Amino acid sequence: MEQNLQDTLSFLTRTPAVLNALLRDQPETWTLRNEGESTWNPFNVVGHLIHAERKDWIPRAKIILQFGESRTFEPFDREGNLRECEGKSLAELLDEFARVRSQNLDELRAMNLRPEDLARRGSHPSLGVVTLSALLATWAVHDLTHLHQISRIMAHQYREAVGPWSEYLGVLKCSGHSSSS
Amino acid sequence: MEQNLQDTLSFLTRTPAVLNALLRDQPETWTLRNEGESTWNPFNVVGHLIHAERKDWIPRAKIILQFGESRTFEPFDREGNLRECEGKSLAELLDEFARVRSQNLDELRAMNLRPEDLARRGSHPSLGVVTLSALLATWAVHDLTHLHQISRIMAHQYREAVGPWSEYLGVLKCSGHSSSS
Repeated sequence: MEQNLQDTLSFLTRTPAVLNALLRDQPETWTLRNEGESTWNPFNVVGHLIHAERKDWIPRAKIILQFGESRTFEPFDREGNLRECEGKSLAELLDEFARVRSQNLDELRAMNLRPEDLARRGSHPSLGVVTLSALLATWAVHDLTHLHQISRIMAHQYREAVGPWSEYLGVLKCSGHSSSS
Repeated sequence: MEQNLQDTLSFLTRTPAVLNALLRDQPETWTLRNEGESTWNPFNVVGHLIHAERKDWIPRAKIILQFGESRTFEPFDREGNLRECEGKSLAELLDEFARVRSQNLDELRAMNLRPEDLARRGSHPSLGVVTLSALLATWAVHDLTHLHQISRIMAHQYREAVGPWSEYLGVLKCSGHSSSS
């Protein structure tokens, strides 16, 4: 199943507004609490999304279009969010995420990608051969992975408060699916 | 760990805007596709949230305040969303959800709940004795359960499209945690 590029764009434009509605001007319970030692809080997740905007999606799309499989992508630094977050408020990070996302979507639209471009191949340092189509679909699902993660982190803060209802609340049964999400 | 009622209110006010940003005027890929037979799509989830606004949170809070443990809550109909959805567009459901949520939060604020009110007990048809505090905390985590679910349903539509990246995308490893979420 291929992606539909218009659907992908339509989704990607919304994430900054979703995170604004969910997190901006919220009490620390919902923004600065995490799921335990060495886990991220929602503030850290927004920093990670900004870092991915700078280093992952569009830079890798350009490598595919310019060099194909002959130039392997640089590995993505999953701790790069720490530098993005340093000294910033959540409001500043949300503004920054909206700005870099909007710029990147402008760049994506300006590429005027045709179906044959989407089939072009690149070289991932761990996954091997990947297509531009899969890279752009991953951009959207990466947002969803982190929305899924943020909803779980927020729910965790009320794990005790819900009392016996916890058995009906699916999000409290989700233990996460990787080190960062 | 108890909830902080102001934090709960601050969270609950946001969910209509979160769902608007995520779903309104989006292509059917993101709103009308589900995870397979007998599963919900995001449109169905919004119908379920409306049904819970009408039948669950405030009606049960009133039963606790008026009758305590002497009157058991009516069981919640998890298929009640089907009636809410019938003949409606997603835009209509999102408008309706925002309206009923706002009315319910006005009712909650008007109750002027004190700490001793939050400790009052009611009788759940399956869970037994519950507190008003736990009911209100559950209201918030129920929203988060369904935001977690919607992010998973949306991601599922690109399960194949992301190619080998699927192993890095936590949301694609989440298989859900109950019949409805």
